[in-house]
Amino acid sequence: MACCGGCLCCQCCCNEGETRTPEELTILGETREDEDEILPRKDYESLDYDRCINEPFLEVLEGLDNKKARKYEAIKWILVFAIGVSTGLTGLFVDFFVRLFTQLKFSLVGQSVEECSENGCLALSLLELLALNMTFVFISSVLVLIEPVAAGSGIPEIKSYLNGVKIPGIVRLRTYICKVTGVLFAVAGGLFVGKEGPMIHSGAIVGAGLPQFQSITFKKISFHFPYFRSDRDKRDFVSAGAAAGVAAAFGAPIGGTLFSLEEGSSFWNQALTWKVLFCSMSATFTLNFFRSGINFNKWGSFQLPGLLNFGEFKCVDGDKTCHLWTAVDLAFFVLMGVAGGLLGALFNCINKRLAKYRMRNVHPKARFVRVLESLLVCMLTTLVIFVASVTLGECRDLVSTNNNTSTQGSVNEEVNSTIRRFFCYNNTYNDMATLFFNPQEVAIHQLFHQNATFSPVTLSLFFVLYFILSCWTYGVSVPSGLFVPSLLCGASLGRLVANVLKINFHMQIYSGTFALIGAAAFLGGVVRMTISLTVILIESTNEITYGLPIMITLMVAKWTGDFFNKGIYDIHIHLKGVPLLEWETEVEMDKLTASDIMEPNLTYVYPHTRIQSLVSILRTTVYHAFPVVTENRDNEKEFMKGNILISNNIKFKKTSVLTRAGEQRRRCQSMKSYPSSELRNVCDEQVVVEPAEEGQDILQQMLERRHVPYPNLYPDQSPSEEWTMEERFRPLTFHGLILRSQLVNLLIRGVCYAENQSSASQPRLSHSEMTEDYPRFPDIHDLDLALLNPRMIVDVTPYMNPCPYTVSPNTHVSQVFNLFRTMGLRHLPVVNAVGEIVGIITRHNLTHEFLVAKLRQHYITI
Amino acid sequence: MACCGGCLCCQCCCNEGETRTPEELTILGETREDEDEILPRKDYESLDYDRCINEPFLEVLEGLDNKKARKYEAIKWILVFAIGVSTGLTGLFVDFFVRLFTQLKFSLVGQSVEECSENGCLALSLLELLALNMTFVFISSVLVLIEPVAAGSGIPEIKSYLNGVKIPGIVRLRTYICKVTGVLFAVAGGLFVGKEGPMIHSGAIVGAGLPQFQSITFKKISFHFPYFRSDRDKRDFVSAGAAAGVAAAFGAPIGGTLFSLEEGSSFWNQALTWKVLFCSMSATFTLNFFRSGINFNKWGSFQLPGLLNFGEFKCVDGDKTCHLWTAVDLAFFVLMGVAGGLLGALFNCINKRLAKYRMRNVHPKARFVRVLESLLVCMLTTLVIFVASVTLGECRDLVSTNNNTSTQGSVNEEVNSTIRRFFCYNNTYNDMATLFFNPQEVAIHQLFHQNATFSPVTLSLFFVLYFILSCWTYGVSVPSGLFVPSLLCGASLGRLVANVLKINFHMQIYSGTFALIGAAAFLGGVVRMTISLTVILIESTNEITYGLPIMITLMVAKWTGDFFNKGIYDIHIHLKGVPLLEWETEVEMDKLTASDIMEPNLTYVYPHTRIQSLVSILRTTVYHAFPVVTENRDNEKEFMKGNILISNNIKFKKTSVLTRAGEQRRRCQSMKSYPSSELRNVCDEQVVVEPAEEGQDILQQMLERRHVPYPNLYPDQSPSEEWTMEERFRPLTFHGLILRSQLVNLLIRGVCYAENQSSASQPRLSHSEMTEDYPRFPDIHDLDLALLNPRMIVDVTPYMNPCPYTVSPNTHVSQVFNLFRTMGLRHLPVVNAVGEIVGIITRHNLTHEFLVAKLRQHYITI
Repeated sequence: MACCGGCLCCQCCCNEGETRTPEELTILGETREDEDEILPRKDYESLDYDRCINEPFLEVLEGLDNKKARKYEAIKWILVFAIGVSTGLTGLFVDFFVRLFTQLKFSLVGQSVEECSENGCLALSLLELLALNMTFVFISSVLVLIEPVAAGSGIPEIKSYLNGVKIPGIVRLRTYICKVTGVLFAVAGGLFVGKEGPMIHSGAIVGAGLPQFQSITFKKISFHFPYFRSDRDKRDFVSAGAAAGVAAAFGAPIGGTLFSLEEGSSFWNQALTWKVLFCSMSATFTLNFFRSGINFNKWGSFQLPGLLNFGEFKCVDGDKTCHLWTAVDLAFFVLMGVAGGLLGALFNCINKRLAKYRMRNVHPKARFVRVLESLLVCMLTTLVIFVASVTLGECRDLVSTNNNTSTQGSVNEEVNSTIRRFFCYNNTYNDMATLFFNPQEVAIHQLFHQNATFSPVTLSLFFVLYFILSCWTYGVSVPSGLFVPSLLCGASLGRLVANVLKINFHMQIYSGTFALIGAAAFLGGVVRMTISLTVILIESTNEITYGLPIMITLMVAKWTGDFFNKGIYDIHIHLKGVPLLEWETEVEMDKLTASDIMEPNLTYVYPHTRIQSLVSILRTTVYHAFPVVTENRDNEKEFMKGNILISNNIKFKKTSVLTRAGEQRRRCQSMKSYPSSELRNVCDEQVVVEPAEEGQDILQQMLERRHVPYPNLYPDQSPSEEWTMEERFRPLTFHGLILRSQLVNLLIRGVCYAENQSSASQPRLSHSEMTEDYPRFPDIHDLDLALLNPRMIVDVTPYMNPCPYTVSPNTHVSQVFNLFRTMGLRHLPVVNAVGEIVGIITRHNLTHEFLVAKLRQHYITI
Repeated sequence: MACCGGCLCCQCCCNEGETRTPEELTILGETREDEDEILPRKDYESLDYDRCINEPFLEVLEGLDNKKARKYEAIKWILVFAIGVSTGLTGLFVDFFVRLFTQLKFSLVGQSVEECSENGCLALSLLELLALNMTFVFISSVLVLIEPVAAGSGIPEIKSYLNGVKIPGIVRLRTYICKVTGVLFAVAGGLFVGKEGPMIHSGAIVGAGLPQFQSITFKKISFHFPYFRSDRDKRDFVSAGAAAGVAAAFGAPIGGTLFSLEEGSSFWNQALTWKVLFCSMSATFTLNFFRSGINFNKWGSFQLPGLLNFGEFKCVDGDKTCHLWTAVDLAFFVLMGVAGGLLGALFNCINKRLAKYRMRNVHPKARFVRVLESLLVCMLTTLVIFVASVTLGECRDLVSTNNNTSTQGSVNEEVNSTIRRFFCYNNTYNDMATLFFNPQEVAIHQLFHQNATFSPVTLSLFFVLYFILSCWTYGVSVPSGLFVPSLLCGASLGRLVANVLKINFHMQIYSGTFALIGAAAFLGGVVRMTISLTVILIESTNEITYGLPIMITLMVAKWTGDFFNKGIYDIHIHLKGVPLLEWETEVEMDKLTASDIMEPNLTYVYPHTRIQSLVSILRTTVYHAFPVVTENRDNEKEFMKGNILISNNIKFKKTSVLTRAGEQRRRCQSMKSYPSSELRNVCDEQVVVEPAEEGQDILQQMLERRHVPYPNLYPDQSPSEEWTMEERFRPLTFHGLILRSQLVNLLIRGVCYAENQSSASQPRLSHSEMTEDYPRFPDIHDLDLALLNPRMIVDVTPYMNPCPYTVSPNTHVSQVFNLFRTMGLRHLPVVNAVGEIVGIITRHNLTHEFLVAKLRQHYITI
């Protein structure tokens, strides 16, 4: 375990960390870029979406009737509602304070600028702005120091979690507090970051934490609420929470639901989806209710859908020739999609290099260096904002809206109230200042709805500056979303295209639509989301007719971008070394079968095992699950004719035997440091993991137990030192799978029986005792070994998963992958035609990199 | 086979028709209502979503590189686009002619009424209307006679198809033509039917048929296009087509996509979902493009989202106190949800009784009786429309809209242009005539947007009449949707509530919202759809803020309705006896395991089987798949000690052996009628299905073949007559699954080898030869037996599915169900811990009825 923590090769050892053979590492090395290798890696655990229906679970089930099931269901609905409301309130909190601080800041500095433009004391205004921004960013950055996982948008982490990878600390209350407060100050500090990504993360934390009614950060927060203590339930609630986050951020409940499904859900589960949608709706309308009440004093009405909304796209009434878009425009949208894809790819490329540089040069250094970087970025951003606003803007004529008394008029009034006039008079405004010297949402509104034009130079400059700064900012040690900066970048580009078409080609177009499509194209090029992003943007614009253009643009942007690199979130996930599973395997991968990709080196336990063996296994391996097996000595005789193997399937066994010997050596070494001297002697005497030796008695017991279908395969001979290699190399019949956490739990709670007793005398644990410590089960190293009698025997059969899904060694990779991905599995045993386990497949055996490496190997051996 | 066709007990024999033991039938009988039993039943086949990766497939795979895979992918995109466009055009066609005929009809009759109201010749107008309507309905009804499966909405059938059940004729070109033309005339004929359901069905047919480039109806339509010849691909395309249908009908591409997912998709597959959404978008915008062009002469613009749209809900501009809805209204929406649920349940209850009555009394009679029923319904509907319009209406004041010059004005102008003034003068209108004497879409618009009021009496009368007539109409032998009638019913109810609240309680509410919520409540109460219906309604209103009220209303309506009965589509599916799989099993079902629910009586084949055995198996059973097994004589010895079984797992075998003997008798009887006299003798000699007898030779071959992992389990002794019962009762190692269609194909194409040859001499079939006849594979009875040499041996191993998903007998039902449902399986072998097959699970073993019956049995035995 210790040896694995520090090693660099743990990229794909999410579960079976220690067990990569040198040969496999070489293969893996081939596909890995050299520069990647030196990045620090962490070891990630998987989540398990499959239910383990063992005896404690069945006991619970026996006591369950339809009434209780309905109660359980009702609790779920209430919790989902609570998650939605809490996420909505979180959004409200962030929004309220961002608004407060931003207004304060801009009114203070704006006033100062107005005054100073006469007095010539602009430097003073700049200093004022700098001081404010840097204070805010400093607070935000310090919060991230407290909980480093709160940095960034959080979407890569949530995506990984929903994909089935546990990332330490990602759903803890402390992270929540740091993230929410941090993003508030980061946005208020004028950094080019959005609050949408962090909102999604916050929602996910609420989803994970609220149904547990306890907190690890604050130990005192703990009610007795023994439900939903499993990865499966937690992941469902996280789905709901993440969806609620999207819903609150964009006012897009359907988009949020689809986001959860696209990023996470293993299989389309109607009951779950319905709850997720309800949760999203709750979040949207909680936020909506309070914001309408607070901002407009219209309590009980629902006016403001989400934190980010795009305003209403609408033609001026009298203008009959006006269309939001026409069929001809679609051609331009496709081109803009291509441009968005290219620019997005560039953005991702630069950001990836930056992230790598940071991982190598910034992260290993003292932590305050990260704070310094944030402050540097903040300073530069503030300088750019100020200098550009003051010096680079053009004064543009304001289009009078007096000729319209309709809806459009009021929208425009709203838009015009946020223009900035720095040094511009007589019904003109400073276009650069309007974009830079405003909250980002206001700038987006300006680009979407301002009837007056922006100069092409301003738009280009704005795009370039924003592109560079936001690219730099994403990855700095503050909570930072990417949606709003990307939208703003893209919108300026779209508006530029509209300007060119309108003025140079005199086309009848609606500028707002082009700005929107530009925003979609660039955002699509950066994040490469598809279905959910389409729906989110449709819902944000509240205009169903934008469906087709948005979809086509996003599609083109994604395809273009995918030529060059992956989406920004996937890049960051990859940099973190998370073993993410894609949606499908490539068709070519079907040339491989389960036996090609499985892990043949197994550490296993017998149904009845001595405590000393269990402890030794647990202390010397890092596996998270162990197959429960019995020896199949009949088959052994058949397959072994002298020293020659008659089946080629047996090759998996061969390697496994070789390492089994090595493993025994390792275990013995570990035993040397074992506190009980008695145990050490035992270990010296008898190194093989040994089963209980009760012969016929146990046979009888096992016959009566339903978990062991073919009990007479149970060994009647005790393994001994005299065994030849061939004797040790024996087929193992598979009976079930037991988790490390379950084994440790059994040891801690003293579930065992003495050699001269029957296994029926073993104490029984209930389901709630088994899951009580979720999600942080005790470690084997926390165990006081002096308290254990190493000669006692543990009967693991009631607690193992007696019938996990299995595959045959000849199953093709696409089928294995589908089963694993769709069912959200953690361990998939590979069992041959006579029921013997030949290997195990975990998440890392199915990652794209691993499959590619194996396929290459496959081609070489052909 | 013949015995099964006619029997009434085939409700759950989708695959394993003949094999229900009397004991099981008794169990099933217990749960079945008596009246259900006498309904005529059909036998349905399942679809298989899992891929069969056998040798021909691997050959294709070998030739596949990334370039070809991309080409394949590109073809899919093009096809999906084509499906979308075609569905859109179908919608356009229907809409255009419905509009044409309806306009013609109403202008003709309306004119006549205006004239006759002075002259007193109203009877003449009535006759005119009757003649027109009855002609239209007659045509529609005759079209359904040609293809009876075109009747009704088609949604139950599509739902079944997407769930994995093949319904004969449901996706054929002839059905398409009858459905499209039929619904056109049914709607034009003034029946209370919608065109939305049939649109969805049409879309699904386009999806199923277009990628095949051939037609069974018109044999000449056949291009060489050998792609997508599998259930898997077809089902994907049907998903896309159905989604396109929804998209075209409601202008709701996202709703359509969710509909496909909710009703059908086995697992959330991002690539597929993305294509489905694209298909929906294509359909929406094709329709939109052409309708905008044709109706408004605005080519290139996109003004009319779908066939059905709800217009724009918008407050009058000046009115600052106007809200579409407030928090207080939500309470009323909940109550309306309850009312909708209750009324929906009533609707379903009545309709179910009607449907049963029809199945028993109308369907067995001559076909023209159905036409007469349609004409009767049409006559009554026409009479009601006419009499109600003329006599029951009230003259209501028209609210002048002159005070508004804004958008709202133009909407109202549009609404007001469709009012009917029958006998009402001086700026008043006849409210009943406005609702009845208009196309249904116009009536919905009136209820949603008419500022003037309808009298409560009119609304109540309208609701009652409409409720009764539409309930009667659904199920009549014409293509008929339910959405529009339900919406209209509900809208009138909602408007009634709004009237009461506004006038009696003087509340500040927006009537249109209440009408919309009423419509949602009633529709939700009838169809009980959830996610997709929410999204469809949101998209149809183009108003995201309606999300929460619509969702809450639908939720309450569904919950209320579910107390009483199922949704209308589920009722009709149930009446048809389709073995539909629900989303999840109930928690209680986990008390059962795979061994409790599996089918233990197996008919199997050996890897190398004589043609005579194959023919006999195929002719005497109706199974659609056969396990490929070898005998496991080693284990046999262990488990049999004298005549006593030492394991209780073996009980499955016991029954299976008993029937195996009976099966052999049956087979021999069948052989008596076999044309070749030689074969008859063979059969008399050797009744046991026998494996090839090449001993060591074959052993060697099989060792080299990868499909047989443990070849030495292959029997080296020929089975003979002298075998005792115990010898016959032998464990069988499972190697794979072969489909009936594949076996017949092998026989037809002469894939076999002589006894004295090696199996390598057997001709090889390519993947395209195996799938050429899809979807209608030849039957064993089409085979000319005289052409076959019964002594030849077929090696089925290259063509079987070598590694289907399997489960262990102890797997709990929820896990089995998840695997089966999610992977879209057709046969799921149950394999014990030593690799022996003990049973097989098919769709009917997992239907709710079967599980309930088994659970009852389980409780009894405890």
